[in-house]
Amino acid sequence: MIEPKVLKGTRDYGPDLMAKRLHVMGLMRAVFESFGYGTIETPVIEYAETILGKYGDEGDKLTYHFKDHGDRHIALRYDQTVPTARYYAANWQELPRPFKRYQISRVWRADKPQKGRQREFYQLDIDIIGTDNPSADLEVLQVVQATFEKLGLDDYVIQFNNRGLMNNLLAGFGVEEAVRVKVIHALDKLEKIGRDAVGDIIEDLGVTAEHTERLLDLVMTEGSNQDKIEALREFEPEAVEEILKMAEAAGMDMTRLDFNPALARGLDYYTGIVLEVVLEEARDLGSVCAGGRYDNLCGMFCKEQFSGVGIAFGFARISTAMLDRGMLDNVHAAADVLVVQFSEETREANLALASQLRAAGLNTEFYLDSAKLAKQFKFANKKLIPFVVTQGESELEKDVVILKDMTSGEQSEVALTDLAETIKVKL
Amino acid sequence: MIEPKVLKGTRDYGPDLMAKRLHVMGLMRAVFESFGYGTIETPVIEYAETILGKYGDEGDKLTYHFKDHGDRHIALRYDQTVPTARYYAANWQELPRPFKRYQISRVWRADKPQKGRQREFYQLDIDIIGTDNPSADLEVLQVVQATFEKLGLDDYVIQFNNRGLMNNLLAGFGVEEAVRVKVIHALDKLEKIGRDAVGDIIEDLGVTAEHTERLLDLVMTEGSNQDKIEALREFEPEAVEEILKMAEAAGMDMTRLDFNPALARGLDYYTGIVLEVVLEEARDLGSVCAGGRYDNLCGMFCKEQFSGVGIAFGFARISTAMLDRGMLDNVHAAADVLVVQFSEETREANLALASQLRAAGLNTEFYLDSAKLAKQFKFANKKLIPFVVTQGESELEKDVVILKDMTSGEQSEVALTDLAETIKVKL
Repeated sequence: MIEPKVLKGTRDYGPDLMAKRLHVMGLMRAVFESFGYGTIETPVIEYAETILGKYGDEGDKLTYHFKDHGDRHIALRYDQTVPTARYYAANWQELPRPFKRYQISRVWRADKPQKGRQREFYQLDIDIIGTDNPSADLEVLQVVQATFEKLGLDDYVIQFNNRGLMNNLLAGFGVEEAVRVKVIHALDKLEKIGRDAVGDIIEDLGVTAEHTERLLDLVMTEGSNQDKIEALREFEPEAVEEILKMAEAAGMDMTRLDFNPALARGLDYYTGIVLEVVLEEARDLGSVCAGGRYDNLCGMFCKEQFSGVGIAFGFARISTAMLDRGMLDNVHAAADVLVVQFSEETREANLALASQLRAAGLNTEFYLDSAKLAKQFKFANKKLIPFVVTQGESELEKDVVILKDMTSGEQSEVALTDLAETIKVKL
Repeated sequence: MIEPKVLKGTRDYGPDLMAKRLHVMGLMRAVFESFGYGTIETPVIEYAETILGKYGDEGDKLTYHFKDHGDRHIALRYDQTVPTARYYAANWQELPRPFKRYQISRVWRADKPQKGRQREFYQLDIDIIGTDNPSADLEVLQVVQATFEKLGLDDYVIQFNNRGLMNNLLAGFGVEEAVRVKVIHALDKLEKIGRDAVGDIIEDLGVTAEHTERLLDLVMTEGSNQDKIEALREFEPEAVEEILKMAEAAGMDMTRLDFNPALARGLDYYTGIVLEVVLEEARDLGSVCAGGRYDNLCGMFCKEQFSGVGIAFGFARISTAMLDRGMLDNVHAAADVLVVQFSEETREANLALASQLRAAGLNTEFYLDSAKLAKQFKFANKKLIPFVVTQGESELEKDVVILKDMTSGEQSEVALTDLAETIKVKL
């Protein structure tokens, strides 16, 4: 006998949780499609060379890879960025440009699993490839806003910054190009380790104490977006001004846009806008969405240089927040109605009734066993099916059924001809 | 530079093909849900012991499996039956019974790829676990019918048989229990190798020439379902009669049900109904759906014995048939309308217009680059976006736009206030 267990860091999702997850994914998919995004699908297994190319040693450790029976070196998808880059490099001449795509799929990490770090999880992201037009940066903000509005997570804040502006700022304080990335990494830790500790790191990188203080003052400026822009005026914050102006013109809710000159985002490859979304009432979750503009998507796979902008949504965190807040309590895998299998004698009539309800557009489950009525009602309860219809021999004679509302417990006799309509009205 | 190629037997799906595939999956999902099926999701990676347990040596060869960095022996999902059995064995006490689930997910085969045999492909199946009530067998037939009706594949025929009847038949002709499976395998080849060759195999298995002839006569009986039932009367075809009677009561289209006493289905573990669907106009595709009743789903994982009935749809074959017949020609990844980015000066107004159309419920793409109009129209053409809206400075002054119908080529001036409605009517 084999113990029926799964690998740590992976899990099963039962029908009710799956209904909730698919509901959330469906809402997000609809938002992406409302902006004209289509989806692509790439293989789960690829040549290890493709998957490992970009990540070097860390990739080797965190990626599942192996030799197959034909001695081919194969790896499981580590993220969606590399396969998308590989896809784009192979197909860009045939694809519309700019190319936009969303992707909802699983990725794998050969990591030690812990809270919030799984071996198998969903990534859900959008990218716009092949344009550096500011409207693309704006669209990413718009999609983010539309998504959180659609999900009903009404405490979202979109923090954003611009790497170009950050570079101007660092250059202005005499930070050598060679250490700028390190200063950016230090700034990224502001919220975690505090101003003093970050200041120490920056000074250790060779920036004078005075410049460090002034730099920290500037990136930590409080006030409105406009206040912060003015404070940074000499460092050319025009890209930030422009995006805010476009956002307003496009009708975005401006109270959600928080220009944060300290926002760094760890990754080195960002070159323009960077952004991060947090839920004010669930800050402990960390960022629920993040991304930015990059300059060279496919460098590994083709000689042409394609810039783009993209974001990834933290699906696990988003669904956790929605589950915690009870926002998915009414989403279930259940049918609208259960038709009881009353007895072997009535079975055919009961089956006909179920078909009739299905034809009327109701999701209708038929009880697929012979069992006492009590057991069949218990089954409906367990599956959270809101209505149960019973038609025994005495009901059959009168062309009626007994309709039970499982929420209120009310039970009533309904004419067969009125049944579907009666249920639809109550649903 | 790394060549951007994928492993043979795997492939990318671009946006247009993905839209078509998701459309087909969505139709099937809706049918399954109309019968009360929910979905579950199991990990792609599992302990190799779990995945390989059932398949022995063939499994070892055809399964992707490897040692991870922690020396755990891991395998990629080979099918959906084994993980479902593992899931059910671990959770049956908590799950409603009967337990019904559908699953749409990828599986992997470490196989030599060839036409119709991929290394990575979708399986799409339903199972009803924990009941041997005939209404469950019927439901599988109903779901199959509803699925092909919904897909519009109107040349489907559901062939079915019953393993119990087949056993009675073989027993009646003195076929020893030990060789019955082999005779069944031989009968399974009737269509492929013909009556004479199958007869030779059966005789070689120790059945007399006379019995072999009579057996083949019987399983190849022509005529109506009722004719075949009568021909087999002495071998107790009551299960077949019962299912046909229930199907009729449930309102099924009886012309689609073809009782085929020769239908064997290769797999040894079937014990009751077996079925197979073919498309009359695409017989070369082979069966597009198949399955049957089994007695012991979780034998490997728990001591309790659970019977059930299940089918798998051949998603690749079904989508091939629909693509070949042009049934998906109108399903695209495209937005409803493209809003032109006329110039940097009009950009904000153009963005506002796009937001307005989106708010009115239209999937609206905004052209995310500065480009000549001709290029933007070419983009719309390539993406198969049916309408393009242009608002230059002169249109802005008059609160109108130019609406172009990309199918007819017609172009007209439309008042801003009427635009969304005008497009909706034409869609």
